[in-house]
Amino acid sequence: MRNSTRSDVDPFIVMDVMEAARKAEEAGRHIIHMEVGQPSTAAPEGARTALSAAMESGSLGYTVALGLPALRARIAKLYMDWYGVDLDPARVVITSGSSAGFLLAFTALFDAGDKVGIGAPGYPSYRQILKAMSCQPVMLETAPENRYQPVPSDFTGKGLAGLMVASPANPSGTMLGKEALADLIHAAQAEDIAFISDEIYHGIEYDAKAVTALEISDDVYVINSFSKYFSMTGWRIGWMVVPPDHVRRIERLAQNMFICAPHASQVAALGALDCEEELQANLQVYTENRRLLMEGLPKAGFDKIAPPDGAFYIYADVSDITDDSLAFAAEILEKAGVAVTPGLDFDPERGGHFIRFSYARSTEDMVEGLARLTAFMAARQG
Amino acid sequence: MRNSTRSDVDPFIVMDVMEAARKAEEAGRHIIHMEVGQPSTAAPEGARTALSAAMESGSLGYTVALGLPALRARIAKLYMDWYGVDLDPARVVITSGSSAGFLLAFTALFDAGDKVGIGAPGYPSYRQILKAMSCQPVMLETAPENRYQPVPSDFTGKGLAGLMVASPANPSGTMLGKEALADLIHAAQAEDIAFISDEIYHGIEYDAKAVTALEISDDVYVINSFSKYFSMTGWRIGWMVVPPDHVRRIERLAQNMFICAPHASQVAALGALDCEEELQANLQVYTENRRLLMEGLPKAGFDKIAPPDGAFYIYADVSDITDDSLAFAAEILEKAGVAVTPGLDFDPERGGHFIRFSYARSTEDMVEGLARLTAFMAARQG
Repeated sequence: MRNSTRSDVDPFIVMDVMEAARKAEEAGRHIIHMEVGQPSTAAPEGARTALSAAMESGSLGYTVALGLPALRARIAKLYMDWYGVDLDPARVVITSGSSAGFLLAFTALFDAGDKVGIGAPGYPSYRQILKAMSCQPVMLETAPENRYQPVPSDFTGKGLAGLMVASPANPSGTMLGKEALADLIHAAQAEDIAFISDEIYHGIEYDAKAVTALEISDDVYVINSFSKYFSMTGWRIGWMVVPPDHVRRIERLAQNMFICAPHASQVAALGALDCEEELQANLQVYTENRRLLMEGLPKAGFDKIAPPDGAFYIYADVSDITDDSLAFAAEILEKAGVAVTPGLDFDPERGGHFIRFSYARSTEDMVEGLARLTAFMAARQG
Repeated sequence: MRNSTRSDVDPFIVMDVMEAARKAEEAGRHIIHMEVGQPSTAAPEGARTALSAAMESGSLGYTVALGLPALRARIAKLYMDWYGVDLDPARVVITSGSSAGFLLAFTALFDAGDKVGIGAPGYPSYRQILKAMSCQPVMLETAPENRYQPVPSDFTGKGLAGLMVASPANPSGTMLGKEALADLIHAAQAEDIAFISDEIYHGIEYDAKAVTALEISDDVYVINSFSKYFSMTGWRIGWMVVPPDHVRRIERLAQNMFICAPHASQVAALGALDCEEELQANLQVYTENRRLLMEGLPKAGFDKIAPPDGAFYIYADVSDITDDSLAFAAEILEKAGVAVTPGLDFDPERGGHFIRFSYARSTEDMVEGLARLTAFMAARQG
């Protein structure tokens, strides 16, 4: 059967790693997973309790396209609690994960052929979704001295229709301070470039609070999710905040493209918003994991690291060791029994020199993983 | 902020009806809902039990992009049970409702600018999603003598890249027999037109079993859902069957565009597949509702109806009564207290002459709705 050109998207390279890890486990080996981008914890108890009650009492049919009004209002309140931002719930759009947020935002903002800037390294699906929607992703090579975040000179004057920024970022974990974020937003607005702020790792931050683009401007798209801080990846539930004059446009698109986000997940998400104690306990685990890795990885020989301000990733420059991060990740899996992600998914140009460690799993796993990596590197260098 | 051209999709006209109905109810009126396109029943008990158990025992993180292997295998078995078709589970793709199925199928098959034929009257989101994806929907005006289904002469020679067909159809409820469906598929294949068969109302059929496109060819896309027969609209869970050589393409797109369908909904759907008794009881309600309306609507004055073979809709030609189905629906709501859907959503050209009755609600509601409609029409004509 015929197929489109735009559907020729790249496969995820990390999938090969995960498949190799799965096979090793099937063969009886014990593998430490530092490749996965999701918490190992379940949705918080309050989320599951809320859903159990709803399954007893209601039919959980379609919700309105923008989502349950109570959930939209509760998310608006989160902006006051987290950032001191007074947000109109009418601007909050419930989405089926940040994935649906990207699809809606890109459709609302960009036509076929439009150029959209995305930082490299960055989340690989940005560029694949843009391609699948007939847009043109423009990779902006970010500099280590800018902590792998774009600066205005990386994107101005290139005829972009949009700019996508993530803070904390995946894979680097670096954040944009208020001034740096404001510089980006103002430079984008000066060229009528739609600014999209991916904030899905907000809440998972260590030394300083993450800044939302809404502290700087209302004329931005903000994409967020219950996947990471709220530990609800598989529930496919997230939200967007859009400019007031875009709400109706997004509503019409959402009605047609999605009808609504999963009702059960919306109910669970509303419950999750009141589970701060449990979620902060998860955060304590990430905090301890990060401390361990920031201390242990340089000792093991992974010492070129941008300081990860948030999320649960460390992106290490391994150019002293290898040009081929894919082969190196395979070697680490084979010899150390630790699964890590080669940088190529995040940065097709320079990713051969990088690997990403995830510390989303238990501290016990991190201790063991670090011991294995240390022994592996010692043997390799010895 | 800037916006795209392709996001200028039409609003749903039925939303105005639903909003007017909601306001009437808020003001204390009792409204019979014959406008809604979803069962009033909850997901079957076995679906909810399965999810409750899973919430106790697992973290419900991401699944693989194509969906839980057990669910894919169980759906493949359904094709044997329902149609006697031997289907490889590897071709079954779990989607976040049929909505995600449309997005995936259109992306995989069509590039920007491609023309895709859809029958009018038909599900309004087909054309809006195509537009949002920069494709060109080509409305094929179907004839009452063809029971509002397309025939080859409606679409051949128009340079189409794709053809979308639904059986049972929304809004007409008519089905394509095996021969008529084969004629369409073969005519499409002769012009390298990708054939997409929307089968989301399968299972809700009355005198004859619906035919799946897979009985005729493997070189088709089939889109289905747990929303209707399985009574799980709000769970946003469905599936596609794709040609063997398209599985990897769809997998890569799904990884990037959706990551996976909601894990909780996948678990619930697997449970729903073993709830035949409860689902057949729902079907008995629709069967009785249909009998009542097919007898009562013509007596009330709605006598130009294509025989609805499946789904829970009746599409009535009201051109003897009005040119403005929107005003007529508003009048029915105001005077009879019955909400119905004007045809304009389904057919922008001829929809002013049609209204759609849904009989997805309880038989009690149908009896009351019919009485009100009968009295309304008698008063109007008297």
